[in-house]
Amino acid sequence: MGVTDLFDPDGIAVIGASKTPGKLGNDAMTNIHSYEGDVYPVNPSSSGEVYGYEFVESVHEVDADLALCCVPSPIVPEVLEDCGEAGIGAAVIFAGGFAEVDEEGQERQDEIVRIGDEYDMTILGPNTAGYCIPHLDLYGSFVPEIRDVETGNVALLTQSAGVGITSAFQLDREEYGVSAMFGLGNRANTGFAELVPVLDDDPLTDAIALHIEGTEDIDKVLKVCREAETPIVAYKAGSEELSDFVESHTSAPIQARETYEDALAGEGVVFVSSVTELIDASRAIADTPIPAGQNVGLVTAQAGPGIIIADELNECGAVLPELDEETQERVDDLLQGITYTENPVDTGRPLPEFGQVIDAVARDDNVDIVIVYEIYEDSLGYPVDELETLAEEIDKPIIFTVAGPESFEEERLQMEEAGIPTFQAPERGASAVAALIELVADNV
Amino acid sequence: MGVTDLFDPDGIAVIGASKTPGKLGNDAMTNIHSYEGDVYPVNPSSSGEVYGYEFVESVHEVDADLALCCVPSPIVPEVLEDCGEAGIGAAVIFAGGFAEVDEEGQERQDEIVRIGDEYDMTILGPNTAGYCIPHLDLYGSFVPEIRDVETGNVALLTQSAGVGITSAFQLDREEYGVSAMFGLGNRANTGFAELVPVLDDDPLTDAIALHIEGTEDIDKVLKVCREAETPIVAYKAGSEELSDFVESHTSAPIQARETYEDALAGEGVVFVSSVTELIDASRAIADTPIPAGQNVGLVTAQAGPGIIIADELNECGAVLPELDEETQERVDDLLQGITYTENPVDTGRPLPEFGQVIDAVARDDNVDIVIVYEIYEDSLGYPVDELETLAEEIDKPIIFTVAGPESFEEERLQMEEAGIPTFQAPERGASAVAALIELVADNV
Repeated sequence: MGVTDLFDPDGIAVIGASKTPGKLGNDAMTNIHSYEGDVYPVNPSSSGEVYGYEFVESVHEVDADLALCCVPSPIVPEVLEDCGEAGIGAAVIFAGGFAEVDEEGQERQDEIVRIGDEYDMTILGPNTAGYCIPHLDLYGSFVPEIRDVETGNVALLTQSAGVGITSAFQLDREEYGVSAMFGLGNRANTGFAELVPVLDDDPLTDAIALHIEGTEDIDKVLKVCREAETPIVAYKAGSEELSDFVESHTSAPIQARETYEDALAGEGVVFVSSVTELIDASRAIADTPIPAGQNVGLVTAQAGPGIIIADELNECGAVLPELDEETQERVDDLLQGITYTENPVDTGRPLPEFGQVIDAVARDDNVDIVIVYEIYEDSLGYPVDELETLAEEIDKPIIFTVAGPESFEEERLQMEEAGIPTFQAPERGASAVAALIELVADNV
Repeated sequence: MGVTDLFDPDGIAVIGASKTPGKLGNDAMTNIHSYEGDVYPVNPSSSGEVYGYEFVESVHEVDADLALCCVPSPIVPEVLEDCGEAGIGAAVIFAGGFAEVDEEGQERQDEIVRIGDEYDMTILGPNTAGYCIPHLDLYGSFVPEIRDVETGNVALLTQSAGVGITSAFQLDREEYGVSAMFGLGNRANTGFAELVPVLDDDPLTDAIALHIEGTEDIDKVLKVCREAETPIVAYKAGSEELSDFVESHTSAPIQARETYEDALAGEGVVFVSSVTELIDASRAIADTPIPAGQNVGLVTAQAGPGIIIADELNECGAVLPELDEETQERVDDLLQGITYTENPVDTGRPLPEFGQVIDAVARDDNVDIVIVYEIYEDSLGYPVDELETLAEEIDKPIIFTVAGPESFEEERLQMEEAGIPTFQAPERGASAVAALIELVADNV
């Protein structure tokens, strides 16, 4: 019973399931019908089948751990009571019309919290687009295309399901996935405090990305963030100027970004300020070892983007150390004094020796994190082999910032396979390094 | 003669052309060989043909306006002298090894400036990856895949050709193009001051994107920026902390970002701080009318991303005005009190009425700029028809921020066709609006 029933439910009831395309109860069935466990469309007004599953009249006729409630808010309490009686351990409530709207909605939400308590039932929502766990083929959401989202090693835990879905689609567009995505909505009885520890224990999750608008149980939330061993990246949205709009969304209390930042300073939580940074920081942290320090080696095949990266690194407090004498000799031998060979090392153009230059810098004891920039040229490609070897042999983050025509895609993905995360704009690579720097500052 | 010979040359000489793949003189031939004018591979040590063009021994045997010089720096002065004698009006010098390296390089650069003066010859570079003008099929660069870059209405004028190429590829990845891309390199005699006015006159260019590291002729640069009628977006990279590295790149003097910002405040130049912002701001400005004021109407189908956009708008000084009474009634009728219907208008999910809601807000006299956010759902799609009508009938910028699976791509591009620029992350849409706000602040 409880939160684990969201993760690997033995049987799923879809309450308010529908045969009519465009209806929420149909969209939810479309997403869940291929789940490998039993699926039960529940609707007393429907008969026949949907996706080969026979409609049942009541949740009492099914053997399920999880209910997806596709019914409007006024009948949610009744439906939830039925779920409790039927022994269902977790329910997702999509409908809005609760604490985020008015006094009546608040009472309705109090009522479902009470029912949740009575039956020890985990409630995701209300007022959420749901969640997904791709590796279980479990898409508990009405968003039609959510099934495109594939498995990855970043968990998204977002107060707004819209932000979770946006982030998941943004990851998907660059061929990444999620270990899980939870849209929390109104957090009737399940929020950050309940789900961070579960995701912290999830072996598929290497970083947890949080999107926070405001939390009633802030002390509990801060506590689980402090205690988590999995690195956390947090994006606090919803400034005080927007109080009405924020409250209308998930009935969140108004809290300043600084409240979270100050409370979690030095606690292994990295703060970011956009969706793209949330994703990029999480990927960088999930895919690379925790660096031993803040010394960055920058190798670039083009000076201009290299300067942009160096600018950003300076701003985030990274150190670009002098290279060790031996490294410098190796680099100078490789580059024959072409351009700027001190750190940052600028090769002036991709060269056959580019991989060896990265190798030299990455193996330097003065360097804790490596960032590379290279515009792809088909005739030379990316130094995939050298990077594969490096990723195996050294225990340091290597961040690869890429640009080029679409033909680079294959080699970009080979680098990802080798554990070298790639970023498709100079500032994105730099902000990934900034996240690693912030993480290590916490750990020093 | 002069700078116009870069734009529509009658005959192009490729000096140092080569049959050997991987050589700069071969890469340059690969890019230029399909240019519709005459192309002359010049190389006294080669015979036979390359891409069907017969090698010639000397530039004196050709009838060309433009020379692409694919030779190493020590022989550049000699080659350039030949070009001048042969009546060539413009030359691109790819080689590094000039003012950016040492005293000897500085002397070499002085020499080519002298030759340029003597023959009234425009010199792009040295130390540049070149330029391209896709609508002329003119790719004067050695970067092999530059030919992927297609025609658009933003001109990129970048001190670092690497940044220009990166930006062009980033545009290309999202199906945009450029009217022209110039990598300036060392700016022997052709830089921002010379090219901004030409691009300002170019009918295909609706916005000029500048990437500046530092300029010797800053007063002239500021003057042409002030005088340009085409909106300019500028990204000043290369902070003072990086002086050595910046100087080693294109021998740029060290100048603070503020020097440019202060001098161009109120002059219709929008400043940004990343490559992605440079591209996005330029696209937004190029594709939409100049707004009449700073009042923004925000329509979102998902509250969470809407809050993120509203946060960013607040920070950039945008005003989210109350809607006119009539507009508010129309919106409330359409949404039936579902969610937050004041500006920002939150529809809670994409609805069949979504396009009508946008229409109501966009036609409100209190609103100067509209930004929309919608996660795509196949069953409803994007309100393409309504937006096409709106773009025709009202003279206001409409910015559409999109998210979704790849299946949205077709409708996204339909919106682009209709003159509604799209942005693929909440903060990217918001920063596009911020650019419009900054532009109108200058014009008020």
